[in-house]
Amino acid sequence: MDSLKQAIEQKLMAWTETIPSSLLKVATQYALQGKAKRFRPLVVLRLIESYGLDPFLYLDIAVALEMIHVYSLIHDDLPAMDDDSLRHGRPTLHLAFDEANAILVGDGLLTLAFEIIAKTTCINDAQKVKVIQILSSHAGLSGMIYGQHLDLLFEKRTPNQEELQAISRHKTGMLLSAAFQLGALVGNPQNAAIWEEIGHDLGLLFQIQDDVLEATTSSDKMGKSKSDDLLEKATFVKILGLDASQQKIASLTTKIKKDIQRISLSSSTIIDLINTILTRQY
Amino acid sequence: MDSLKQAIEQKLMAWTETIPSSLLKVATQYALQGKAKRFRPLVVLRLIESYGLDPFLYLDIAVALEMIHVYSLIHDDLPAMDDDSLRHGRPTLHLAFDEANAILVGDGLLTLAFEIIAKTTCINDAQKVKVIQILSSHAGLSGMIYGQHLDLLFEKRTPNQEELQAISRHKTGMLLSAAFQLGALVGNPQNAAIWEEIGHDLGLLFQIQDDVLEATTSSDKMGKSKSDDLLEKATFVKILGLDASQQKIASLTTKIKKDIQRISLSSSTIIDLINTILTRQY
Repeated sequence: MDSLKQAIEQKLMAWTETIPSSLLKVATQYALQGKAKRFRPLVVLRLIESYGLDPFLYLDIAVALEMIHVYSLIHDDLPAMDDDSLRHGRPTLHLAFDEANAILVGDGLLTLAFEIIAKTTCINDAQKVKVIQILSSHAGLSGMIYGQHLDLLFEKRTPNQEELQAISRHKTGMLLSAAFQLGALVGNPQNAAIWEEIGHDLGLLFQIQDDVLEATTSSDKMGKSKSDDLLEKATFVKILGLDASQQKIASLTTKIKKDIQRISLSSSTIIDLINTILTRQY
Repeated sequence: MDSLKQAIEQKLMAWTETIPSSLLKVATQYALQGKAKRFRPLVVLRLIESYGLDPFLYLDIAVALEMIHVYSLIHDDLPAMDDDSLRHGRPTLHLAFDEANAILVGDGLLTLAFEIIAKTTCINDAQKVKVIQILSSHAGLSGMIYGQHLDLLFEKRTPNQEELQAISRHKTGMLLSAAFQLGALVGNPQNAAIWEEIGHDLGLLFQIQDDVLEATTSSDKMGKSKSDDLLEKATFVKILGLDASQQKIASLTTKIKKDIQRISLSSSTIIDLINTILTRQY
């Protein structure tokens, strides 16, 4: 495993060590130990690295963001929400433990994210306040939570293209753009706005890619079954059509590449990471 | 209504104005509009006032704490947790709306609390970081969440006196001691430790008072029925006995009064507020 990713995994665990209840600790560690790509924390750290700084010094910022991501998955998986039974190939937290503790662990990870930023020594107080502002506004009632609310709302009726984009922008785009903003905050705050835009575009592109992948790949090849839920769910391919979806991916790719060229970086590690998305194989 | 309490109510509403979903906004406002005593935010502000400062300037700190309290009630009331149907005489949020939105509104209020502190202009960055540290550590997996976890755990077996005190210390004591610490942080940080202790003692005293009240008052007089749940639940009266419980209230009262005398204040508004608890009528 990439040593930076390994350091993220270790730091995530390190912050759970002081949880006083053994059950809550084990449940929290279970939730954090899924086979996750850690894309968001890697974005934070690779972006910092691309500005010539040592990413290993800023792990706390990256894991705080990842904890907010993991909390959102735990709560989204609950029976009252998406009612999912599998996450990263393992039973979801409320099935592996119980619903009450899944709610509590989610609440706990969200709270811990802010505690980590308050306690970290890797940035100064002014930067901490900015980080907390970015995390809370992107994760909150006008950000990611709004996205999950919209997603539940459109289980009842089919969204149009604009609404589908609004779900994607909030539900997945918000934390991704937060990742880029956090990296820019440490690396070069003057670039924050453009990285935020790249984050939103990349989130949208990723979602459309997923929908195209779902529509064009056989179940066998994907290694998972297409559930009825999935088939009924509105996707960009269903709303826009396959051709227009692929055109949208192409134009977003062009836009992201053009935006990146406007930024001066000392290394290309963040570009390499973005390219793993832009060149995803279907 | 007391003008400070009125200002708290208005400030709570003001922070919900920008919620983009009308349903999430209405649900959040419903949750915040219960007939609550606002004891925690009043502690923050009356303590600040007792140090000679204008409490109306620090409303943001007080409402951030209250939002964390309200989020905890929403999530504790959920079917998977305490499964409560009434809160402040009205249907709980998941019954008035639905479970999914109750989870989201709870998550949203917790997140908003940190966003408010990040955005407020009433304190400087160093103070903001300290406030966020106090809020997150008291509300988190070693604080209030641990208390709720213990409370659920001891539905299965009867706790002993020490365990009962641990539940009370974490479930209710943590946010109360946070309120005193926040007030002290603004008023006079050197007094923070002693106010924290007063907060914990007052929380424990309040819990024992409640149990004594429950045991000695007729259902008619209390204006509510004693549910089976309530009768089965471990209480200080059941574990310690009525006499020992009343003695414990008396000794905590003496300790709190002695502690307060060690602190030099410019007005007595916080003492008046504490006295409303110490002199509760049974």
